[in-house]
Amino acid sequence: MNLILLEPHEIRNGEVELTGRRFEHARNVHRVICGSEVKVGVIGGKLGRGVVDRIEESSLRLSISLESDPPAPLPLRLILAVPRPKVLNRTIAASVSMGIREIDLINSWRVEKSYWRSPGMTEENLRFQAVLGLEQSGDTILPAIRKHPLFVPFIREKLPHEIDGRLALVADPRAAAECPRAIESAAVLAIGPEGGFIQRELDTFRDIGFQTVSLGPRILRVETALAYLIGRLF
Amino acid sequence: MNLILLEPHEIRNGEVELTGRRFEHARNVHRVICGSEVKVGVIGGKLGRGVVDRIEESSLRLSISLESDPPAPLPLRLILAVPRPKVLNRTIAASVSMGIREIDLINSWRVEKSYWRSPGMTEENLRFQAVLGLEQSGDTILPAIRKHPLFVPFIREKLPHEIDGRLALVADPRAAAECPRAIESAAVLAIGPEGGFIQRELDTFRDIGFQTVSLGPRILRVETALAYLIGRLF
Repeated sequence: MNLILLEPHEIRNGEVELTGRRFEHARNVHRVICGSEVKVGVIGGKLGRGVVDRIEESSLRLSISLESDPPAPLPLRLILAVPRPKVLNRTIAASVSMGIREIDLINSWRVEKSYWRSPGMTEENLRFQAVLGLEQSGDTILPAIRKHPLFVPFIREKLPHEIDGRLALVADPRAAAECPRAIESAAVLAIGPEGGFIQRELDTFRDIGFQTVSLGPRILRVETALAYLIGRLF
Repeated sequence: MNLILLEPHEIRNGEVELTGRRFEHARNVHRVICGSEVKVGVIGGKLGRGVVDRIEESSLRLSISLESDPPAPLPLRLILAVPRPKVLNRTIAASVSMGIREIDLINSWRVEKSYWRSPGMTEENLRFQAVLGLEQSGDTILPAIRKHPLFVPFIREKLPHEIDGRLALVADPRAAAECPRAIESAAVLAIGPEGGFIQRELDTFRDIGFQTVSLGPRILRVETALAYLIGRLF
C-alpha cells in the first residue's frame, strides 16, 4: 500500500477517520505516529498528503490536503479470458497497477465454467482487487471491469464497433509475428486462458481485425505475459 | 505445468516412472489415459514427448523420446533485493519462466532481516520455484541462484569484475531516464526492495557503472516491474 485510498464521502472538513484494513496498515506497516505524513488519494480524484492528528486503539484521523492529478491512464483496453480465481485477483491488481482502465472479462473454450461462479468474479471482489492495484501504484482511477459470459455475441457483434481504429492484438503462443514495440497509438489487447484460445476463437479475432502476436518461445503465465507485453507496447 | 520435467537419473531405458506431484498433475489436469502424449523435458537437457504406457493407482510410466533443444536463455543477469517470501516465490518462478539463468539475491537497507531466514530462501525451495518456472515456460535449464547477504562486498567489490561490458541498469522509481528499449546486448538488471534502494545504495550502483532507469509514474510490484522491463529491454 503505497497510497491510502479514500472514498470521497469519507472526507469531512478535510479530515478522514481510518479504521480496519487501512488503519492496520498505517499502524503496522507505515508505523505512523501523531504528525506522520502519508500519501493519500481520493478514488476518482486527486492525490495528496494526510497528516496523522490522532491515533486511537482501532482508528486514526488524518488531515487531508489534495494537490496533484493521478498519472495518465495507459491507452490500453484489456480483453482477458477469465483465469482461475487466484490468478484473476493478481491479474486485475497488476493490470490496474499498470494504469489499465478498461478490462473485459470474456469466456473462451478453455475457461472452466466454475471460474464464472467463483467469489472472485463478484463486483465486490473485482473492485477490491482494483483498489489493491491503485494502492500499489499510487493511482486513484478505478477501471471499468465488464463481464461477457458469451464469446461470440461480444467478440463478433459488439467489440468490432468499439475498436475505433485502435491497434488490436491477440496474444497467441503459436503466432509467427512478434509483438510490435513502442506503439504511438492506443491499443486493444486480448489474452487467452491457460492453454490459449482455440483456433476458431483466434479466427473470430482475426475476422474482426485483430493481429495475432507471439510472446517468444516460452509460455508465460497470464500476469507475466501481460506486464511483458505492456513493457513492449508502450 | 506445460512440461513434465524429469531428472536425468530418473530415465532408464527410455522410460520413467512418475509419482507424487507430477503424477497427480498428469492424471488430474492433463487427464492422461494409456496412449496419451505429454510434453517432457530433462533438467539440463532436451525437450521431447512422453507416451503414457501404464497407469496405476499412484504412479504412471512414460516412454520418452527427446528431440529438441530448450529455448535460448535471456541474456540477462538479475540482481534482486530479497522480497518477502510469497513475492520471492512468484518472482523466482516468473524470472525463470522468462528465461533468466542468473539470479543474485542481495541484501539492501529495506530488506527485512527475517526474509533471509525464511524457508523460502533454502536451496531446496529456490530450486523448486525455478522448476515451477521451467514447467510453466517449457524450458529445461535451471538458473544459478546465488545469495549475497552483504551488500557492499558483493556490489562494490565483486560485481564490478563480472559485468564484462554488459549494459547495467538499476530500476528506481525516482530516476529521470526511461528504461532503454530493444537492446542488442546482454544486460545486468538490479531491482530493489519494496520502497526501493536507498540513496547510498543507488550511489554504489552508479559508482560501479549502473544507470538508474525509471518505470514510469507508477510504483509496480517487483514481479510486474520485472516482466515489464524485460518486455521493454529485449
